[in-house]
Amino acid sequence: MAKEITSRVDNYSQWYNDIVKKAGLADNSAVRGCMVIKPLGFGIWENMKQQLDKMFKDTGHVNAYFPLFIPKSFLSKEAEHVEGFAKECAVITHHRLMNNPNGSGVVVDPSAKLEEELVVRPTSETIIWNTYKDWIQSYRDLPLLINQWANVVRWEMRTRPFLRTAEFLWQEGHTAHATRDEAIQEAEMIHEVYARFAEDYMAMPVIKGAKTANERFAGAEETFTIEALMQDGKALQAGTSHFLGQNFAKAFDVKFADKNNKEEYVWATSWGVSTRLVGGLVMTHSDDEGLVLPPRLAPTQVVIVPIPKPNETILKVANDIADKLKALNISVKIDKDDQKRPGFKFAQYEMEGVPVRLGIGMRDLEKNQIEVARRDTKEKTAVALEGIERYVQDLLKEIQDNLFNRAKQYRDDHITVAHTMEELEQALNEKGGFVKALWDGTTETELAVKEKTKATIRCVDTENTLGSGKDIMSGKDATQTVLYAKAY
Amino acid sequence: MAKEITSRVDNYSQWYNDIVKKAGLADNSAVRGCMVIKPLGFGIWENMKQQLDKMFKDTGHVNAYFPLFIPKSFLSKEAEHVEGFAKECAVITHHRLMNNPNGSGVVVDPSAKLEEELVVRPTSETIIWNTYKDWIQSYRDLPLLINQWANVVRWEMRTRPFLRTAEFLWQEGHTAHATRDEAIQEAEMIHEVYARFAEDYMAMPVIKGAKTANERFAGAEETFTIEALMQDGKALQAGTSHFLGQNFAKAFDVKFADKNNKEEYVWATSWGVSTRLVGGLVMTHSDDEGLVLPPRLAPTQVVIVPIPKPNETILKVANDIADKLKALNISVKIDKDDQKRPGFKFAQYEMEGVPVRLGIGMRDLEKNQIEVARRDTKEKTAVALEGIERYVQDLLKEIQDNLFNRAKQYRDDHITVAHTMEELEQALNEKGGFVKALWDGTTETELAVKEKTKATIRCVDTENTLGSGKDIMSGKDATQTVLYAKAY
Repeated sequence: MAKEITSRVDNYSQWYNDIVKKAGLADNSAVRGCMVIKPLGFGIWENMKQQLDKMFKDTGHVNAYFPLFIPKSFLSKEAEHVEGFAKECAVITHHRLMNNPNGSGVVVDPSAKLEEELVVRPTSETIIWNTYKDWIQSYRDLPLLINQWANVVRWEMRTRPFLRTAEFLWQEGHTAHATRDEAIQEAEMIHEVYARFAEDYMAMPVIKGAKTANERFAGAEETFTIEALMQDGKALQAGTSHFLGQNFAKAFDVKFADKNNKEEYVWATSWGVSTRLVGGLVMTHSDDEGLVLPPRLAPTQVVIVPIPKPNETILKVANDIADKLKALNISVKIDKDDQKRPGFKFAQYEMEGVPVRLGIGMRDLEKNQIEVARRDTKEKTAVALEGIERYVQDLLKEIQDNLFNRAKQYRDDHITVAHTMEELEQALNEKGGFVKALWDGTTETELAVKEKTKATIRCVDTENTLGSGKDIMSGKDATQTVLYAKAY
Repeated sequence: MAKEITSRVDNYSQWYNDIVKKAGLADNSAVRGCMVIKPLGFGIWENMKQQLDKMFKDTGHVNAYFPLFIPKSFLSKEAEHVEGFAKECAVITHHRLMNNPNGSGVVVDPSAKLEEELVVRPTSETIIWNTYKDWIQSYRDLPLLINQWANVVRWEMRTRPFLRTAEFLWQEGHTAHATRDEAIQEAEMIHEVYARFAEDYMAMPVIKGAKTANERFAGAEETFTIEALMQDGKALQAGTSHFLGQNFAKAFDVKFADKNNKEEYVWATSWGVSTRLVGGLVMTHSDDEGLVLPPRLAPTQVVIVPIPKPNETILKVANDIADKLKALNISVKIDKDDQKRPGFKFAQYEMEGVPVRLGIGMRDLEKNQIEVARRDTKEKTAVALEGIERYVQDLLKEIQDNLFNRAKQYRDDHITVAHTMEELEQALNEKGGFVKALWDGTTETELAVKEKTKATIRCVDTENTLGSGKDIMSGKDATQTVLYAKAY
């Protein structure tokens, strides 16, 4: 199996595609830019979803569901939003097919043209704020803390499984507030939830910061982002949380009466993470043998492989261990196949990223021990059968921590400070990763750097590590530290 | 509150719409035929989903996700399927909007016309079997037991919230098997799962049977259905499970090599339930005061209302009870509002269908008791504070059972045997419900009865209660018992 995938150093991009394919995460589909999410890929997304959903509910949010379609005219109601989202999208113009009068198959029925075209949602601010108009009259109706799990479509020209697809799955939170401060606090709180999820569950360290005006969500006054670093030195925007001011309330005329019966426009946030996170997870931890999954998100945390084949004694022990692991809420699979060789199975489970593999053979059983192999380091150890479930439980925690620490070490090693454009370019070209530099705060300079290096400002450094001085590109006075990187 | 909704006897249809609106289950949207599912409605669906998902996984299925869009030509590949599904659907013809050159807003960019139109999935057999072609080569790849949770779109002319909407949420299982028998067993097993879910969780009794050829899913060889009875005497098709034979395998050329290396077409099933179940739940149990929810699916099972207002003593007791209930996995809400009167709150929670309401007042507390009100019968009882959590736990079980028994009694009282067309028409007009009669097995007769009475054959009686004799419509020899009903 292992030799079937390209190594990272040879071709990182191909390595990623190979893992997605060979581990069974996703497949291409007959529809341009749309992927099929296979059971393993979907299992990871389900685990992400379950944990995020819990975190949203614990912070007071409820789920709802809004229509897939958005009337074309809605997109034009918020001036910046239309520029960002109305362009490349799936447009529904008709509501009927008919038998082809000139031959076989079906054709569009010209008599079934819609009066107003519908767009498949690229994001739902417009349809949701159009609905909120009916739901919000008074301060008593606020805050409204709603999240939606949904599919969205953006007609991307160049797509890659999980990282950028025409259709993708995501959650989008849309909250409404009585005050500006409360809305900003909400956006910041979700920013924190996203960072915590990325680090504690995905074992993916992230840098938290705010986007520049140029990189903000179309229609937002402030966009908070978590930025992760992939193993090829490119950054991945992993989750954003937007303070939308009163822009959508004004566009859809959503006002509320405050305690003094004074009317005011409602304050808004929106925030989302998507199946892109599955791509980020793959790129953060995996290696040349295949997928590496953090235990807290692995659909199967432990696999038990009889060596060389299942027999009654081995299966009895395997079932016993499996029961004990399940009692600890550990997901476990016993491989009962009696055709394939152990070596083949080992390679398969390494490809699929199962965190812990237990090998049970007769010779080991005589010594009351089994073989424990961990996916992250590929170490194998003989471990006593007695108390094996606690050993595995501890090991899963250790693997989770090790993956995070390893990724954090890599990320920290790939943050460079640049005092000149030469240093910026050198760091980007030779080392990759994030490069900290002073910035004069203008979009003009930001775009000039992008033009020259292909790197963008991933976020503004909230701690402003570099203080003040001159912008490395423009030479003008600069008082903000930013992190540049090439990005997905 | 209560007087705000129409009573069932006055106008059943309006009563339903009133409950959907006033209980906050769903709202109309700006898009024709598409509803907004509000938090309470979505919370019910989430509970249904969670339980069904568990039942599917317990029977060996895994989840995956296939594209929202289907190439137009795919729909024509299975001859019957195209007749059933290719007609009223959302058709995507373009992938871009552009600024209106003649004014404001955006218009469809004529240069962005798709080579082949895409249809928003009305169901996914075609795109899935086109994918299965790549996944299935040998008997070792079978069975493939996959489910998908998704949104689908059917351009319905007349829509009603939950019962019939242009977009709806559902699950669709699509399985592939090496033998005919195995596929039939799968379809039957899921049929059983659906019936169990409807009765044990929704407390909605169902009749299990097979559809006639005329009522089958487009492309199926056999469709199993569960049919429920609403309080207006109309039937609701609540879940179907299809044996698809080799129809889709042949349409998409999906073959496998068996153990003897002989190639054969793969056998298929598909099965689904949708947000329609939320409508069925409302119509089965609710009354003129509002929604009535079975405890096993109620997002909030218990609400605690301080009487007349919250104070420190009452909230301390309320929190203590809430903690004890949560420890028993009972979902509970404490109403801490200090503005609204208890009577207003009581009416609100009755409207929202919360199964159990606990009223805590100082006078009762002096006697170490609280007031327990159950939603199903609206009985109120003073109950000792000591051990209240066990009392509530038992009461929730009792309410669940009572709702099922009440609905079953109603359903059983509305099954009539008809020996003549007059009896059939009389039963349909005066009593409603299911009418059992002998049927000659022809579509011609079935359609003649429908023409005359508006009733359709909901399913064939598996036990053939009436044996053999003459068809009540055609007078021809009849050997099958069927259940007629008017239906949603």
